[in-house]
Amino acid sequence: MNTFGTLFRLTTFGESHGQAIGGIVDGCPAGLSLSTATIQKALDRRRPGQSSLTTPRSESDTIQILSGILDQRTTGAPIGFIIANHDANPSDYDHLKTTYRPSHADFTWEHKYGLRDHRGGGRSSARETASRVAGGAVAMAFLSTIGIRISSYVERVKEVALADGLSGRMFDLEQIDQHPVRCPDPITASAMEAVIAEARDRGDTVGGTIGCVIDGIPVGLGQPVFDKLNADLAKAMLSINAVKGFEIGSGIAGTYRYGSEENDSFIIENETVRTATNNSGGIQGGISNGMPIRLAIHFKPVATIQNDQNTVDQSGELSVIKGKGRHDPCVLPRAVPIVEAMAALVIADHVLRARSDRA
Amino acid sequence: MNTFGTLFRLTTFGESHGQAIGGIVDGCPAGLSLSTATIQKALDRRRPGQSSLTTPRSESDTIQILSGILDQRTTGAPIGFIIANHDANPSDYDHLKTTYRPSHADFTWEHKYGLRDHRGGGRSSARETASRVAGGAVAMAFLSTIGIRISSYVERVKEVALADGLSGRMFDLEQIDQHPVRCPDPITASAMEAVIAEARDRGDTVGGTIGCVIDGIPVGLGQPVFDKLNADLAKAMLSINAVKGFEIGSGIAGTYRYGSEENDSFIIENETVRTATNNSGGIQGGISNGMPIRLAIHFKPVATIQNDQNTVDQSGELSVIKGKGRHDPCVLPRAVPIVEAMAALVIADHVLRARSDRA
Amino acid sequence: MNTFGTLFRLTTFGESHGQAIGGIVDGCPAGLSLSTATIQKALDRRRPGQSSLTTPRSESDTIQILSGILDQRTTGAPIGFIIANHDANPSDYDHLKTTYRPSHADFTWEHKYGLRDHRGGGRSSARETASRVAGGAVAMAFLSTIGIRISSYVERVKEVALADGLSGRMFDLEQIDQHPVRCPDPITASAMEAVIAEARDRGDTVGGTIGCVIDGIPVGLGQPVFDKLNADLAKAMLSINAVKGFEIGSGIAGTYRYGSEENDSFIIENETVRTATNNSGGIQGGISNGMPIRLAIHFKPVATIQNDQNTVDQSGELSVIKGKGRHDPCVLPRAVPIVEAMAALVIADHVLRARSDRA
Amino acid sequence: MNTFGTLFRLTTFGESHGQAIGGIVDGCPAGLSLSTATIQKALDRRRPGQSSLTTPRSESDTIQILSGILDQRTTGAPIGFIIANHDANPSDYDHLKTTYRPSHADFTWEHKYGLRDHRGGGRSSARETASRVAGGAVAMAFLSTIGIRISSYVERVKEVALADGLSGRMFDLEQIDQHPVRCPDPITASAMEAVIAEARDRGDTVGGTIGCVIDGIPVGLGQPVFDKLNADLAKAMLSINAVKGFEIGSGIAGTYRYGSEENDSFIIENETVRTATNNSGGIQGGISNGMPIRLAIHFKPVATIQNDQNTVDQSGELSVIKGKGRHDPCVLPRAVPIVEAMAALVIADHVLRARSDRA
Repeated sequence: MNTFGTLFRLTTFGESHGQAIGGIVDGCPAGLSLSTATIQKALDRRRPGQSSLTTPRSESDTIQILSGILDQRTTGAPIGFIIANHDANPSDYDHLKTTYRPSHADFTWEHKYGLRDHRGGGRSSARETASRVAGGAVAMAFLSTIGIRISSYVERVKEVALADGLSGRMFDLEQIDQHPVRCPDPITASAMEAVIAEARDRGDTVGGTIGCVIDGIPVGLGQPVFDKLNADLAKAMLSINAVKGFEIGSGIAGTYRYGSEENDSFIIENETVRTATNNSGGIQGGISNGMPIRLAIHFKPVATIQNDQNTVDQSGELSVIKGKGRHDPCVLPRAVPIVEAMAALVIADHVLRARSDRA
Repeated sequence: MNTFGTLFRLTTFGESHGQAIGGIVDGCPAGLSLSTATIQKALDRRRPGQSSLTTPRSESDTIQILSGILDQRTTGAPIGFIIANHDANPSDYDHLKTTYRPSHADFTWEHKYGLRDHRGGGRSSARETASRVAGGAVAMAFLSTIGIRISSYVERVKEVALADGLSGRMFDLEQIDQHPVRCPDPITASAMEAVIAEARDRGDTVGGTIGCVIDGIPVGLGQPVFDKLNADLAKAMLSINAVKGFEIGSGIAGTYRYGSEENDSFIIENETVRTATNNSGGIQGGISNGMPIRLAIHFKPVATIQNDQNTVDQSGELSVIKGKGRHDPCVLPRAVPIVEAMAALVIADHVLRARSDRA
Repeated sequence: MNTFGTLFRLTTFGESHGQAIGGIVDGCPAGLSLSTATIQKALDRRRPGQSSLTTPRSESDTIQILSGILDQRTTGAPIGFIIANHDANPSDYDHLKTTYRPSHADFTWEHKYGLRDHRGGGRSSARETASRVAGGAVAMAFLSTIGIRISSYVERVKEVALADGLSGRMFDLEQIDQHPVRCPDPITASAMEAVIAEARDRGDTVGGTIGCVIDGIPVGLGQPVFDKLNADLAKAMLSINAVKGFEIGSGIAGTYRYGSEENDSFIIENETVRTATNNSGGIQGGISNGMPIRLAIHFKPVATIQNDQNTVDQSGELSVIKGKGRHDPCVLPRAVPIVEAMAALVIADHVLRARSDRA
Repeated sequence: MNTFGTLFRLTTFGESHGQAIGGIVDGCPAGLSLSTATIQKALDRRRPGQSSLTTPRSESDTIQILSGILDQRTTGAPIGFIIANHDANPSDYDHLKTTYRPSHADFTWEHKYGLRDHRGGGRSSARETASRVAGGAVAMAFLSTIGIRISSYVERVKEVALADGLSGRMFDLEQIDQHPVRCPDPITASAMEAVIAEARDRGDTVGGTIGCVIDGIPVGLGQPVFDKLNADLAKAMLSINAVKGFEIGSGIAGTYRYGSEENDSFIIENETVRTATNNSGGIQGGISNGMPIRLAIHFKPVATIQNDQNTVDQSGELSVIKGKGRHDPCVLPRAVPIVEAMAALVIADHVLRARSDRA
């Protein structure tokens, strides 16, 4: 279904080239200060056309809040919103009516539902994630009131990666956004930009890794068995288009170590229980332990490329698809606010769920 | 909560050292042939004490089916089951009443709920996964009727890994189970065994990777946005104790390639649309495309070790915890049927959900 | 939360005097023929200002479908829609900012959420039900394809009731809508109209009963324990503003009979198993038996009246509230399409759920 | 599905003549004092064989708690429990293998699922409600800690009814249970007993009404739109076998009044806002207003009678079914604790849900 979350919930609708996309945030606690500007600011970080590294599709992604907020305070009622599609060129996609783009959802959607909206991927387009960013901004506003911060940035583009010592740290929004690549280290960011530009110029695309750090988390978020905080975060991240891998804490690297090396000893710091290392990535037994949550989310290269590709068409004949349409050569810079939004939605949901822990 | 799934649902209960664990499988379609023996067989693969590589705790893990099956057929009613705990030694855990084991759920559970069952990890113990294996066996019986097969095996223990050409293939249960390590290649399995034995003898533990291949999948399972098939599989796997990373298809390796290298071209094979490569791992846009689903699930080394470790106690004092209690030096061989069970639960759920796709 | 349904789901948003109300229909099967006109027609039956018996608030209730339909067919994607609020007069409600209207949600909402939208009841206004009618029209379009028909009409206004022999029958839309009261018997309808007009002229309001008959139902809808078809219908109806009672089949009258009188004997009619009587109202053990489902839904008189009423204000002082604002003297004529919509949503959901009954 | 509730959840399993019935209470807050005796006491009020007015089936209904409680405190883990079936006589039901009992679930279950457990109604038997009583006792233990009390009793058996002035009041358990009919007025109770005995002696059955009053409710429980507190209570009650009608507050009687008569004026009493009358039955706009919640739940006569009845069999032939098997001549006395349990489950769920109302 198109709903995410148990108590703090986002339901979205809308296709890439329909009239509008939008959604409903349900379960947002009443009395929260919230302005349209706060949400718009988040959307501006995701919208297309921000730099030469992103798709030239021009969308202002202006949000219209239709309900749930009165005098800049949430009322407890669901927050309905829409984001109009302005620069939709459905005719750009006429050649895709009967042909399936490799590694896209064209083939699978059509065989699932018996028909599909071929215009720009329809509902499968990453344009849908704008609604997630809007919902995530509401969640973030709630989390800010209890001191939770989320820092998300590009850690790697193809082989160019942030130095080990930097990855896993919190960075300010300013540091992250100072370069359009959204890598907080300017020199690495420039190298990443070169890789993306090179791919773009050859009609190709590249992938990489986004890091996400969540700090100020109280001890006790997450459910011990199926709805572990890490499990819900994994689902959230894998639900983002193009994500192929997910790691928490020391991740795969930690699975090469001995238990005696990997375990996080407890220590006392400023009269608070902490761990000497944070290989657990802030979550133990599915429940937050108060240390920063550290995630790595791996994105494949964008499936839309300008080169010719072999494919088949609706009638089952072999065919060649020609590159056309607007797209990003690398999804990572624009995926940064999406990762942040999904993290915020998961954490907000678990903050509310944890309110029922004790009698 | 302790429920997994939307239409095909498993709810579990039970602590490591309580009277019994168990669960309820709800939503299993009626008229399915199902015997207790089928479920017991799956449990036997997970139960402790199978070899010198696993915990010496001796549990027969005999399942008792209490409802939902009549004359070896499911009736549409929920299937309630219990598995008694026989070899519980709660007193083994007296020293843990007030001390938190590093990288376990002791600290987080107690701070979440205000109290905890310290006996063998209580509800946080991996003993809970026996109920998942039982539920997964029911799901698997359902999937078998439509030709879906799941093959899960150990791909890596610490640095010892299955050869690249073998990883990602389907193997028969006999091949996988011929060696207690559950790696289908006997030579690699022996090398893995040596690594585990070495760690065990030093009171230490090791981790690694389990591969999971799901074949015979119809096109069209999974939901396009939040409940992508890969997202639900990721959640399922990350909900297993000790899992730190998840990959689908070409996974992280694929994020180092160009789009032109990573994309899976469509081809026609035996009058069926297939892809020339399977970097997508059988899922495109969150929906199965009919190719085998390929997953890699990464497990950290078991947190319980025999060496002394620094920690704190309930009163906030620094303390040293001494290794004690029975445990596995490496969780992977016994985690193989758990991975399989979780995969089966997700797929069974999506098979039912897909029945509502079309009018 | 603001979502109704398990597989066929409606989520709504919007306040009486906000910019717009709307919703998302999720889970509607793909490939269904559906035009905006079909939905608009349903909304026209609910919209205010249809006759002198309803509120003079003038709203065209024009629906705008934003997604999920392409070339008049549902695509499997969620159907997002909005209905603008045109004739909102928030200033009409200034006197209610600090005073609680008796038997309204003013007091309870404010104490639940800490603040409230006082403009026309905000989210608690029955205006929200327009979104339900839109969602119900989509459900109805789906049900029509499998021969299910729903007939809903006014059975009683205060003491004026449809003759016993007529109540519980199916009537055509034309018969029901020929009189603005929506009672299918013209003579009774006129008598009801007189009762409503008399109350309106005195600044008072009246209630009554709506009957709902659902025909063409396949055997087997509903779940045997908690999600009985009658239980879900009861919830649906009690979720409509002003509903105070619910009966199925012979209802309360049947509870005065002996079991030997109340039981429905099975007979064979046209080679089909039917029951000689239908005291069960089409549902036995929570599951439909193929006979028409018969419901009676009882509505209290509208709480907004023109007479002065004693109440208290925010500061806890006694106060007198003066009648003001536009409202219906009797909610029943406009509630007919709402009852129909809620019934359609429940049945559509259970049609999809029943697809998972058998292996 | 077999789960009830959103945050405070009960999942049940088990058939009338299987090995055992049971369930899982999930979401019960940690730290609650709870003993097995408390739950057993509730079960003792529902168990068969309490008096000559109930079925002679002899079941001790002894509960076994398997998890979730340690040292008489809830731990936050799910509470699994089983209740063995001792006095099952499956052979009593051999004659029902191929014949459908009128107004039972035999026909509908078999046509839904393709097969059925004919032994005593299988899953459709009211025996399942023992698990609800167990779950409700846990909920009640939680509600007691915040001062909520539930009083449920028989208000009417056939035409014999409690005097108007008594109905809707709170009564002590002792008063209610002093007579096996569970009507708090001894004289009315005796008259009811005579009606039940008369029906029983003739092989017939009777129905009636149970009243339920919930007091000590904080203002603010319930959700404003679909999950209105009254809507969830209606679903809960209609999910009980044999329930045909539901009313809240002044119920159907109130729908005969003018708005000016039905509205509940607000007053100040002991510095608290209350209403002069309580026609709303404690809920306004779906949200509790602090006044007692008053419900009337109407039960049809038990469908199992000793008289011969016309029916059909599996092969579609007309048949006559002969009365046989043990059953209650009137379900009401034993339904009292079931109504109480369902009310407790709904209220406990909404107490937890209301914890997320405010930021």
